[in-house]
Amino acid sequence: MAIASIITGLYILRWVKKQDPGNERTRFVGGAIKDGSHAFLRRMYKTLAIFVAGMSIILFVFLPNPIWATSNPLNNVILVAAYLFGSICSGLAGYLGMDVATDSNMRSAHAAQKGITRAFLISFRGGAVTGLAVVGLALLGVSIIYFFTSNPNVIIGFSFGASAMALFAKAGGGIYTKTADIAADLVGKVEMDLPEDDPRNPAVIADNVGDNVGDCAGMGADLFDSYVASLMAVMLLGVVLGGYLVELPLIFAGLGIASALIGIFLVNVKEGQDPGAVLSNGTYVTCVLYLGLTAVATYLQGYNWRLWGASAVGLLIGVLIGMTTEYFTSTNKPPTQITAASSLTGPAVTIITGFSYGLISVLPPLVGIGLGSYAAYTLCEGIGPGYGVYGIGISAFGMLSVVAMIIAGDSFGPIGDNAKGIAEMSGFSEESVNILDKLDAAGNTTKAITKGFAIGAAGLTVISILAAYKEVAEVYLGKAIEFDLMNPIVMVGAFIGIAMPPVFSALLMLGVGKNAQRMIEEVRRQFREIPGLREGKEGVNPDYAKCVDIATVGALQELMPATIIIIGTTLGVGLIFGVIGLGGYLAGSIFSGLIFALLMSNAGGLWDNAKKYIEEGHHGGKHSEAHKAAVIGDTVGDPFKDTAGPSLNTMVTVIGLVANIFLPLFLIYALIR
Amino acid sequence: MAIASIITGLYILRWVKKQDPGNERTRFVGGAIKDGSHAFLRRMYKTLAIFVAGMSIILFVFLPNPIWATSNPLNNVILVAAYLFGSICSGLAGYLGMDVATDSNMRSAHAAQKGITRAFLISFRGGAVTGLAVVGLALLGVSIIYFFTSNPNVIIGFSFGASAMALFAKAGGGIYTKTADIAADLVGKVEMDLPEDDPRNPAVIADNVGDNVGDCAGMGADLFDSYVASLMAVMLLGVVLGGYLVELPLIFAGLGIASALIGIFLVNVKEGQDPGAVLSNGTYVTCVLYLGLTAVATYLQGYNWRLWGASAVGLLIGVLIGMTTEYFTSTNKPPTQITAASSLTGPAVTIITGFSYGLISVLPPLVGIGLGSYAAYTLCEGIGPGYGVYGIGISAFGMLSVVAMIIAGDSFGPIGDNAKGIAEMSGFSEESVNILDKLDAAGNTTKAITKGFAIGAAGLTVISILAAYKEVAEVYLGKAIEFDLMNPIVMVGAFIGIAMPPVFSALLMLGVGKNAQRMIEEVRRQFREIPGLREGKEGVNPDYAKCVDIATVGALQELMPATIIIIGTTLGVGLIFGVIGLGGYLAGSIFSGLIFALLMSNAGGLWDNAKKYIEEGHHGGKHSEAHKAAVIGDTVGDPFKDTAGPSLNTMVTVIGLVANIFLPLFLIYALIR
Repeated sequence: MAIASIITGLYILRWVKKQDPGNERTRFVGGAIKDGSHAFLRRMYKTLAIFVAGMSIILFVFLPNPIWATSNPLNNVILVAAYLFGSICSGLAGYLGMDVATDSNMRSAHAAQKGITRAFLISFRGGAVTGLAVVGLALLGVSIIYFFTSNPNVIIGFSFGASAMALFAKAGGGIYTKTADIAADLVGKVEMDLPEDDPRNPAVIADNVGDNVGDCAGMGADLFDSYVASLMAVMLLGVVLGGYLVELPLIFAGLGIASALIGIFLVNVKEGQDPGAVLSNGTYVTCVLYLGLTAVATYLQGYNWRLWGASAVGLLIGVLIGMTTEYFTSTNKPPTQITAASSLTGPAVTIITGFSYGLISVLPPLVGIGLGSYAAYTLCEGIGPGYGVYGIGISAFGMLSVVAMIIAGDSFGPIGDNAKGIAEMSGFSEESVNILDKLDAAGNTTKAITKGFAIGAAGLTVISILAAYKEVAEVYLGKAIEFDLMNPIVMVGAFIGIAMPPVFSALLMLGVGKNAQRMIEEVRRQFREIPGLREGKEGVNPDYAKCVDIATVGALQELMPATIIIIGTTLGVGLIFGVIGLGGYLAGSIFSGLIFALLMSNAGGLWDNAKKYIEEGHHGGKHSEAHKAAVIGDTVGDPFKDTAGPSLNTMVTVIGLVANIFLPLFLIYALIR
Repeated sequence: MAIASIITGLYILRWVKKQDPGNERTRFVGGAIKDGSHAFLRRMYKTLAIFVAGMSIILFVFLPNPIWATSNPLNNVILVAAYLFGSICSGLAGYLGMDVATDSNMRSAHAAQKGITRAFLISFRGGAVTGLAVVGLALLGVSIIYFFTSNPNVIIGFSFGASAMALFAKAGGGIYTKTADIAADLVGKVEMDLPEDDPRNPAVIADNVGDNVGDCAGMGADLFDSYVASLMAVMLLGVVLGGYLVELPLIFAGLGIASALIGIFLVNVKEGQDPGAVLSNGTYVTCVLYLGLTAVATYLQGYNWRLWGASAVGLLIGVLIGMTTEYFTSTNKPPTQITAASSLTGPAVTIITGFSYGLISVLPPLVGIGLGSYAAYTLCEGIGPGYGVYGIGISAFGMLSVVAMIIAGDSFGPIGDNAKGIAEMSGFSEESVNILDKLDAAGNTTKAITKGFAIGAAGLTVISILAAYKEVAEVYLGKAIEFDLMNPIVMVGAFIGIAMPPVFSALLMLGVGKNAQRMIEEVRRQFREIPGLREGKEGVNPDYAKCVDIATVGALQELMPATIIIIGTTLGVGLIFGVIGLGGYLAGSIFSGLIFALLMSNAGGLWDNAKKYIEEGHHGGKHSEAHKAAVIGDTVGDPFKDTAGPSLNTMVTVIGLVANIFLPLFLIYALIR
């Protein structure tokens, strides 16, 4: 199925590339975005090569056993190879996603001149390529490693490689995209009074590149990481129990891909249809197909039905979380409308109101994740002792099984957004811009839902990573361990763990500020020093590449300390407080990571849509005082929802994998054992 | 010592009342504030009477054993009596604190005309009365109950009474004070262009009342509650261990009061001295005295030195948390200055930057609390099994032992703030207003430190409440229980628990918004309908009382649903997921409660001071664009730091006490046992 997925992905890619890329201007703008995106990825991968090399050395020297204390150094080589393989696959998935996105955007823009059907199809299928590439590569990678080594422990290495890469892609892309966004708005719109997406603005390409690297490449790498981590955790848990439980997730994963393939080909918008509804229907069809196919497999293979139930629970919870996310961020629901109305009293009230709804919005998903994991556990513990945590793992994986479809829906948004930008810069008719605007709006709603889905899946995944961590530790130690909250070592770990997500998000957001400052200066410089740029003289183009470069270098520079602090603290806690303390730390980071991921994503989405709601003509419409207040809310929300919030999933996963992979060291060298 | 504390408090109260209350205008303004404050408390206590009556009935019917299933209904009566007694003592402490604050403010304003020394002394001693009343009443109440019943379980009832009252006082006062503040600023300053504290503004008295009910009465009731809860938890833990461990906290409490008494009389500002430094020195002297006195007691009574060590650890952590709080909120430290500088780029950046530093500021206190509880545990577990959690309790109590001094320093701020308002409304010379401004500024710094102290103490207290909960449950069950994080019941409890603090703070903040809306309309109405008010015609006074009334009724109306949701969810989790699930729930609420309390208090304080820093003349000073941005940040921070943040301590304590007091019911009726 993995190969089928990749082949289908390539087939769709060819279809996309065959579409007409439009006139010269379109191709020029689209080309600049494509070049910028490639420049970003090239630069990022170059920087990451250093990180990956360093990490490879550390892994080789210390793991799974210190090189001086092992009789079989080949194991260390295998682990490093798995790690490298994971990084490469994750990088490749991100690269492909971005590449096809930058192919689709101009073609979609061009197609919009002839109506919505084809424009939609190109945007959506562009996203589908990423989705298929992600799951295809993930499943293929895991299968290869499992086939060659039959050792799920090596998959941890693969998963860690994927996660570290995802963290850079997601958080680095997140810093990048907001840097460019702020600089483009602040100098372009505010200081120079240019309209949005004006080609004279040197930061405009960087801004559009940001959508691709943050949302397409970042989200691709992020979900690749969740998918692999979740698969890994459930396989590790399966190894302890034995039997068909190691293979079962691979089978279910294959069926998930099959369902998504069918779902993807069914999605099609006719003139006059609402693209948002079509996308949602596609997702629901995929879910139902998945449940049906896995039920058939369970029946034919004689799997225990309780496992199927756990996987269904996960999927259900995912859909429910997506729905509540939609409630809290959609323009036609009370939270957004009340926040929009509160903008009449000024920006401070907008922010307090939106933030408050963001706080409330964490409740349903948290209760959902809690009850979901409880239900999955109780269901499967009925099979026998130890099956409960496996059930949680399967439910997490159930949520992620339809991920190809989710990614397709999610990448669709930024492609539409980009296409709109290209259409505006190419001077297309208002009608075609409006069509693309519709796609953009539909994309915003799907994006909110998929974000909820991604966070929910990450929540269950990290719980199963924690469970896997515990099981593996027990195997090493040869005795049962417990993370009792009244054990002060667990407690001190938890207290440090809960502080990590806030600190990490703060460092990212402060990084955006610092980086934006640099870029703002560059944009101002170009307006000052390039003659004729401001006036829009024929043939005078700003130095787009310079802006892209500054934003890229800065983003990576800001990201590094945050990453090192997070990984360093995890290693420190493990080395000081040992396996038990680190268990508390992981649990703590899961708790506060989920809270802040939900709070920031939802509040950010809500402010964005409150602004859109006012722009639709409510409370005085554009340029009113209320609109100004709402714009401030939206600007606060930008780094919340696009930088800090979505990076937290990945951060928590990375922490969990670091704990798992370095576990043997903590067992030997920890201060408190 | 308790009685000595109360007597000294009354003595100082007489001293304050003997000071000259000033001329007619001062007395008129001061009187209006006093009347408004009394009106608030009267109305609040009336509303609370209904709540207290309802809760008394519930307690009587169900606890400690359901009335139909007990042979000894007298126990139920005793519990209700203890509950009522706790409510009354807490209410009395709040009432006294507010009463003396409203006596001191006008006298301090009057004295400022003759220099700083006496003005400072009146403000500080006014605060000291509250401090002494709080600890005196708390210790007296606990001692009486312990003397009559010898049953620390009954103290839970007393503590619950105090906590519920504190929640209303703190959160209700918090909603009230920000309602009045926003309305006074928005209509007065923005719409009508009146200066701050202008007597023509109908909301101005309500605003000054707010400082008294939010900061004086609220903080008094809050620390009363922490003090009692902490004392209760450690005594409960002591009962299980037996010996002198039940009495020891009472002895240490007495010595804490003695140290504070000496410290209070040593505090005195000479002309030219910095009042902030004098206050800090007073606190340090008190701490050192406390350590000395308890060391002597430990030596004389032959207590185990490890217990003394644990109490010293608590005090040390408290001071450290206070210091980091100061770092993150003080005008001469980088976080505030960087946030002020970021205001140059607009309000959104101010908010992102301040919020980010708020996020980072949670790290040191959380690590401190984690390490502190670990150190206290490890130290005391050396005495014997079971002593570890007792050690955590003693360390929490160590932090709170000097609370009389802390409250004196904390109440000082709002009294100075009020005095400044009165001086301005009475038309005093600029020189005396400047003196009071100095007191106000010194008050802001101490307030930040004491808030850190209060949150730290609450953190350790709730941990020991959780420990007490577990011990009591084990006694009932006759077997050991564990809150293992991998137990799905603990996990589902924890997931629900971590959602509670965000939801509670959101409801309070939304309540402020709704309530402010009502009051804004009333203020606008008065300006419209009272002839001559706007123009400041001689003899025309606005209807201050109406504004106070609207804000009061509204605050209580907004508070009730939040309180009922919190208590209801706690009972619900206990009845569904049983004792173990509720343990996870409590731990979860502690984790996220601490994060949000620290984040909101510190970010709020930081924005406030960033604004002040700009007003000192940096980045363009008052009326610059940067100042406007900083004002928006400050307005966002207001409900953060004065409504939601500080109420979370109390909320978490209330949850813990509800769990403790209803424990017998959960053991019998819970769905999952």
